[in-house]
Amino acid sequence: MKVLYLNGPNLNMLGIREPTIYGALTLKQIEHQVQEKAQELGIQIEFRQSNHEGSLIDWIHEASGIFDAIILNAGAYTHTSIAIRDAVSSIKVPVVEIHLSNVHAREEFRKKSFIAPVCAGVIAGFGAESYTLALIAVSGLLAKQHH
Amino acid sequence: MKVLYLNGPNLNMLGIREPTIYGALTLKQIEHQVQEKAQELGIQIEFRQSNHEGSLIDWIHEASGIFDAIILNAGAYTHTSIAIRDAVSSIKVPVVEIHLSNVHAREEFRKKSFIAPVCAGVIAGFGAESYTLALIAVSGLLAKQHH
Amino acid sequence: MKVLYLNGPNLNMLGIREPTIYGALTLKQIEHQVQEKAQELGIQIEFRQSNHEGSLIDWIHEASGIFDAIILNAGAYTHTSIAIRDAVSSIKVPVVEIHLSNVHAREEFRKKSFIAPVCAGVIAGFGAESYTLALIAVSGLLAKQHH
Amino acid sequence: MKVLYLNGPNLNMLGIREPTIYGALTLKQIEHQVQEKAQELGIQIEFRQSNHEGSLIDWIHEASGIFDAIILNAGAYTHTSIAIRDAVSSIKVPVVEIHLSNVHAREEFRKKSFIAPVCAGVIAGFGAESYTLALIAVSGLLAKQHH
Amino acid sequence: MKVLYLNGPNLNMLGIREPTIYGALTLKQIEHQVQEKAQELGIQIEFRQSNHEGSLIDWIHEASGIFDAIILNAGAYTHTSIAIRDAVSSIKVPVVEIHLSNVHAREEFRKKSFIAPVCAGVIAGFGAESYTLALIAVSGLLAKQHH
Amino acid sequence: MKVLYLNGPNLNMLGIREPTIYGALTLKQIEHQVQEKAQELGIQIEFRQSNHEGSLIDWIHEASGIFDAIILNAGAYTHTSIAIRDAVSSIKVPVVEIHLSNVHAREEFRKKSFIAPVCAGVIAGFGAESYTLALIAVSGLLAKQHH
Amino acid sequence: MKVLYLNGPNLNMLGIREPTIYGALTLKQIEHQVQEKAQELGIQIEFRQSNHEGSLIDWIHEASGIFDAIILNAGAYTHTSIAIRDAVSSIKVPVVEIHLSNVHAREEFRKKSFIAPVCAGVIAGFGAESYTLALIAVSGLLAKQHH
Amino acid sequence: MKVLYLNGPNLNMLGIREPTIYGALTLKQIEHQVQEKAQELGIQIEFRQSNHEGSLIDWIHEASGIFDAIILNAGAYTHTSIAIRDAVSSIKVPVVEIHLSNVHAREEFRKKSFIAPVCAGVIAGFGAESYTLALIAVSGLLAKQHH
Amino acid sequence: MKVLYLNGPNLNMLGIREPTIYGALTLKQIEHQVQEKAQELGIQIEFRQSNHEGSLIDWIHEASGIFDAIILNAGAYTHTSIAIRDAVSSIKVPVVEIHLSNVHAREEFRKKSFIAPVCAGVIAGFGAESYTLALIAVSGLLAKQHH
Amino acid sequence: MKVLYLNGPNLNMLGIREPTIYGALTLKQIEHQVQEKAQELGIQIEFRQSNHEGSLIDWIHEASGIFDAIILNAGAYTHTSIAIRDAVSSIKVPVVEIHLSNVHAREEFRKKSFIAPVCAGVIAGFGAESYTLALIAVSGLLAKQHH
Amino acid sequence: MKVLYLNGPNLNMLGIREPTIYGALTLKQIEHQVQEKAQELGIQIEFRQSNHEGSLIDWIHEASGIFDAIILNAGAYTHTSIAIRDAVSSIKVPVVEIHLSNVHAREEFRKKSFIAPVCAGVIAGFGAESYTLALIAVSGLLAKQHH
Amino acid sequence: MKVLYLNGPNLNMLGIREPTIYGALTLKQIEHQVQEKAQELGIQIEFRQSNHEGSLIDWIHEASGIFDAIILNAGAYTHTSIAIRDAVSSIKVPVVEIHLSNVHAREEFRKKSFIAPVCAGVIAGFGAESYTLALIAVSGLLAKQHH
Repeated sequence: MKVLYLNGPNLNMLGIREPTIYGALTLKQIEHQVQEKAQELGIQIEFRQSNHEGSLIDWIHEASGIFDAIILNAGAYTHTSIAIRDAVSSIKVPVVEIHLSNVHAREEFRKKSFIAPVCAGVIAGFGAESYTLALIAVSGLLAKQHH
Repeated sequence: MKVLYLNGPNLNMLGIREPTIYGALTLKQIEHQVQEKAQELGIQIEFRQSNHEGSLIDWIHEASGIFDAIILNAGAYTHTSIAIRDAVSSIKVPVVEIHLSNVHAREEFRKKSFIAPVCAGVIAGFGAESYTLALIAVSGLLAKQHH
Repeated sequence: MKVLYLNGPNLNMLGIREPTIYGALTLKQIEHQVQEKAQELGIQIEFRQSNHEGSLIDWIHEASGIFDAIILNAGAYTHTSIAIRDAVSSIKVPVVEIHLSNVHAREEFRKKSFIAPVCAGVIAGFGAESYTLALIAVSGLLAKQHH
Repeated sequence: MKVLYLNGPNLNMLGIREPTIYGALTLKQIEHQVQEKAQELGIQIEFRQSNHEGSLIDWIHEASGIFDAIILNAGAYTHTSIAIRDAVSSIKVPVVEIHLSNVHAREEFRKKSFIAPVCAGVIAGFGAESYTLALIAVSGLLAKQHH
Repeated sequence: MKVLYLNGPNLNMLGIREPTIYGALTLKQIEHQVQEKAQELGIQIEFRQSNHEGSLIDWIHEASGIFDAIILNAGAYTHTSIAIRDAVSSIKVPVVEIHLSNVHAREEFRKKSFIAPVCAGVIAGFGAESYTLALIAVSGLLAKQHH
Repeated sequence: MKVLYLNGPNLNMLGIREPTIYGALTLKQIEHQVQEKAQELGIQIEFRQSNHEGSLIDWIHEASGIFDAIILNAGAYTHTSIAIRDAVSSIKVPVVEIHLSNVHAREEFRKKSFIAPVCAGVIAGFGAESYTLALIAVSGLLAKQHH
Repeated sequence: MKVLYLNGPNLNMLGIREPTIYGALTLKQIEHQVQEKAQELGIQIEFRQSNHEGSLIDWIHEASGIFDAIILNAGAYTHTSIAIRDAVSSIKVPVVEIHLSNVHAREEFRKKSFIAPVCAGVIAGFGAESYTLALIAVSGLLAKQHH
Repeated sequence: MKVLYLNGPNLNMLGIREPTIYGALTLKQIEHQVQEKAQELGIQIEFRQSNHEGSLIDWIHEASGIFDAIILNAGAYTHTSIAIRDAVSSIKVPVVEIHLSNVHAREEFRKKSFIAPVCAGVIAGFGAESYTLALIAVSGLLAKQHH
Repeated sequence: MKVLYLNGPNLNMLGIREPTIYGALTLKQIEHQVQEKAQELGIQIEFRQSNHEGSLIDWIHEASGIFDAIILNAGAYTHTSIAIRDAVSSIKVPVVEIHLSNVHAREEFRKKSFIAPVCAGVIAGFGAESYTLALIAVSGLLAKQHH
Repeated sequence: MKVLYLNGPNLNMLGIREPTIYGALTLKQIEHQVQEKAQELGIQIEFRQSNHEGSLIDWIHEASGIFDAIILNAGAYTHTSIAIRDAVSSIKVPVVEIHLSNVHAREEFRKKSFIAPVCAGVIAGFGAESYTLALIAVSGLLAKQHH
Repeated sequence: MKVLYLNGPNLNMLGIREPTIYGALTLKQIEHQVQEKAQELGIQIEFRQSNHEGSLIDWIHEASGIFDAIILNAGAYTHTSIAIRDAVSSIKVPVVEIHLSNVHAREEFRKKSFIAPVCAGVIAGFGAESYTLALIAVSGLLAKQHH
Repeated sequence: MKVLYLNGPNLNMLGIREPTIYGALTLKQIEHQVQEKAQELGIQIEFRQSNHEGSLIDWIHEASGIFDAIILNAGAYTHTSIAIRDAVSSIKVPVVEIHLSNVHAREEFRKKSFIAPVCAGVIAGFGAESYTLALIAVSGLLAKQHH
């Protein structure tokens, strides 16, 4: 079982950027944390990050047939990108939307997600934990599918 | 460690009401599922359900000093109740908002949550799994607090 | 054949409250009027009233399996309660929404009904007559179902 | 006692057009059904249909002094015609707005009626039954007036 | 010099319909009043009324080359008809929009005119006087043009 | 019979400011034109202009008991001043709102008038003629009152 | 003279909940403060609190004939409850709306009150003082009525 | 194969009305152009024009069973007529919406079409060419259906 | 202790203007009423009124260092003036917003206050009593500050 | 004569992605279909696709001086990209906007195009045919230009 | 070369009012700073301040023919005054809008400027520096004009 | 001291694209102009341009620690990119937003900037001068920081 973690714009700045909102861990450190849980669950994971909307779309397309699920933190593109929404719709692989911060507790424009309506589910607000929780969630989803 | 599960209006109808949206399990069955995870995590849980906004508020107040966290599926009150939001703000106990269905994939009025902005985080769309994921999330939150 | 009449907030004040809008009959007197028609149609009726949103939801759930139809005057909750809407969706019993006054001729916020979209139909503006018309309507609906 | 039934745009297509929404009866067949009830109530009825907003307005004006009430299914003009609203306001004859389908359960733009606020009442969602129910309602209204 | 008065929906009901809003004069009586002023100004006038949006459009087209100006009381179509707006744009003849009542002092939806932006000017609120004032205005406009 | 002409902000710039919109006449020249008509109608007129909202309000108050009517070109304050609206409401003297340009053919924000709903009527779009037409209108209004 | 104080959701948490917004006094302590003023004014007061919308409505109905005025702090229901608004309309007893905090200085959704339009007046922002000021206001209102 | 061209309000003014927007050809001349293409494609065409919304609806109904497709330039009714939308829905004949001008490059209110959502497709902005392109499109659509 | 009463546009018309809304007392008479209470509380008061937004701003600035509080009835400027809001923010003196009428029970545009969010509190709807209540409120506020 | 086809995000997934909406042909197959028509019309075509907004902009710029027209299916960027709109405005080459599906019959947010207002025209809803129709349209546009 | 600095409401409070937002310098001190730069650029400057919208309009009118440019900090009037906008339009002198604070980083209502669309340019957020930068900008603008 | 100029989409077309809006200079020529001023101020500058949102974000991240300030003309991304906004927030380097044209005088959608609220300041409307003014502004900002 293989799961692809896609990280959108500015997530390469984690640990540096506004730590009071996004936490003190770097994306690399989060990846290590998740790796542990992944091994426990017998899931192979891969982490990618890009600031380019187009690259995220390319990767979503490529995931089809290779990965069993995508865990997507689309960052600010969550609120503006219909193209990523369409990319998610274009594949059969289930996608889970995640956020480090509780997006509902921030600016009005962060409350709307173009992508969530075509995802399996959403997890937001638990910091780096959101990444691990999503893996458990995905593992449950896939278990149910294989029945 | 004690966690209170509060279930809002119509959740007593689970398993009966629109199973294509909410799944085939009753609330009782979900409670049993969660119970297993709770024991594994060493957490004591309690499940309550009411169709009365006022009762949910009463229970939130009572939780203070007795429970370490609340996992709240406020059902339709999520979208209309400022009173429950204020109840959550009035206590120090962390609250996690959960939903069985992916509320973002349904009617427009289900996209807005009055309660999420004052919660620690939100988990939605994983059916009965949302209840278990929230427990894991809460367990993480409390672990961090105790450091 | 059994039909449940549910009356929402402030309808206990009928005959007292703003008679120019709601008419001079009390809810008890309306019940008597409807009783006559019910006997003529061979329908057993029951009248309940509550100012509590939660109680209305409880009663809607309980109606399932006991009553053949609900005639619902949800009063002001018509315009604010997604929870009652969900309760109506959660049962198979057909529900007819009624209003004493012509809600479209009053304040802007009374024009929107959260409940009507999940009801079989709507009757508004005929004063106490709305209650009797709904019974005739329900009797027609059920006759059609039994074919 | 004479009642005029006015039918707006596309109602000549009844029985042909989208039967899952509007039912399988033609307007002629509905007229026959209503005729029976009318005789029972001792009311003389007349059915007219036009796709022309102007013709509906002309007929509303002409009804004054000849008919005791109008039962108006203005079809799509319900949602766009201030001119028909003004026509209804310009006469003393009471008007009841009816709809075959439950307009509240359809597109957003069908929820707004320009005409309802100047009508005596509204009946929607009971298919051909809406026509008969309106006649009973009108008969009650006129009975009350004659007292 | 010839001026065409076009009167839209329900204006045939003047003197009958809501006299507290529209005044006690019939359209015929207004025509007589205007006739006097027209003779004084040496202008030939013609009065037409229709409840049909299409007829008003037909007449606006026909005016081209025959009339020097149009004085248009489009009634309720003022607020809903882009088609009449386009008709006015399609001819070179100047058009003045008039209203008997002060449309700004009534319902919100009467404050918007689709037609006014393509007219020479607007006169509203002076009852039957609005018709005479418009004639004086038109006479001024045409005088200026002929210079 | 005495009529007060009140001119709001920037009308002192007439003839200088954007002549393609407002015409080539100065306010003084318009006053002279109106003066002729006033003498013909036996009306005494007075012209005032201020760029100060407060001064316009002061003058509206003072008009009470001294002038029989006010003709008000409130300029840009038309669209922003509730205070001038209240001043107009505070006196019994009838007020007519006028505009040189056709405000409906310009920016969106010029379509809304706070003042028009409390005026007797509105005349817009006839350039300097608007001032004379308003005088004739006022003369008619006062004639009717004196009957 | 008897005055009923009704306190809505979460006001039982006063002194505990967000003291920087709502102050450090408990509802009991506020009641004691008000009691002093009440005795001085010769008014008998009664304090009730509920988190249930329905209970507040019940109490408003019961007040009729027993109390001379109601002072209502409806808490969060102020912004969402049309049912409480209707309850206030259904009785002849004057109602004064009060708030501890200045609701206008907080979230956008706290600026709208469904209840204020049917109240005699509103007092907000003076902390516990708001309760006493309302009593003085009510005492003035009733004095005027008795003349 | 027979195709009906329906032309809405003001299209009889083509070649006369605002040629910079709509082009210099009359509707007759466009018909001739299309005729050539129609013969080439072996399609029989018929052109009709009306300024009456009701007539357009009548013609849409009549097309059923006689024409294989409708090409509809509803002019300004595109933006205001739910009745024409319903007429299109009421028949099985495919309808293509066309416009001479690029409606998206004009006033805001011309960007919304009530009719497009129930059409097969939309072609706009190519002047008289839009009529020929639609015929080719329709010919393709019908070819696909006949397979 | 010195308190400045600032009265905005049209308040000089009190007793004359719409007495059913604003009461029969003149501003002078209100001042006398307040004077009595002021002496009782040992507060020195000063009353000013202007129809000029700029003068109100000037006076708010001048109050700094001279007055201990401002009681501000900004009239219609309440709903349109960001400049007065900024003036209130620019000083440390506490300001209480008052209204004679219950602004929430009137036109929609009177429900929004630009000034309230930067005031200590709001009192509305008690007629001339609002002025006295505000003085008591201010006296309480200042007492608390001096502790 | 050379025409550039630009295909935006997710169009590389054609034939795979949601075939009920977008059809069963791949982009390659559409290109072949168009190629045939292009040869018939004596037009040289080139197909490009990118998921990157920036690449589409780069290509639009490069087209200037090399291609005679652009046929642009901007996919989801149609609804969100002002940058592509500006790119289209920055060149003199005419651009035609196309869509496979009828965007008006889908989600609300797909009805708005930022790009259409600066294009020559729009063709939507004919599946792969939209590509060929656009070529015919472009060929007509260019023929007219060369006259 | 002469440049007029106009300062709107509350700018006389600079250095006193909310120094964290507006800085610690008084308007006099800013004037001195600018004076230095003005001498360096060979520009004569004049500083005026008023809290009166009307005075700002008067001064804008007077500037015509005397000053070569206006640098306008309209303060809160920026967001509410169409009258000042019209004053700016009424003169040929170029106007530059400036703000001390970054208005985009504050309340929503400070993001809209009625005046900016008729100005040459806008400079905001650099504190007292905004005044000097505007002078350099103006100097550039005028230099270009004189070529 | 080093300053990075970032130029967004379509700015590579400067001098070519719509010169009446953006001026006749190419980006290269602007760079040369700025270079002169930079040398005078002792600032080292670097110019970059990209049509890719992601590249702009990459560059903003890279600037941290290398450049002392960024001057950002984000072009159309100003109005749509929350991702660039977040990039600006993620670094400590001050950013100044600039525009060649006066964005407030253009389409409605160009009035909103997602980026301005997190910038130090904004300069718009001075053509190529905006680039130089921003450098002077930045030089002032940095001078202040170094104190």
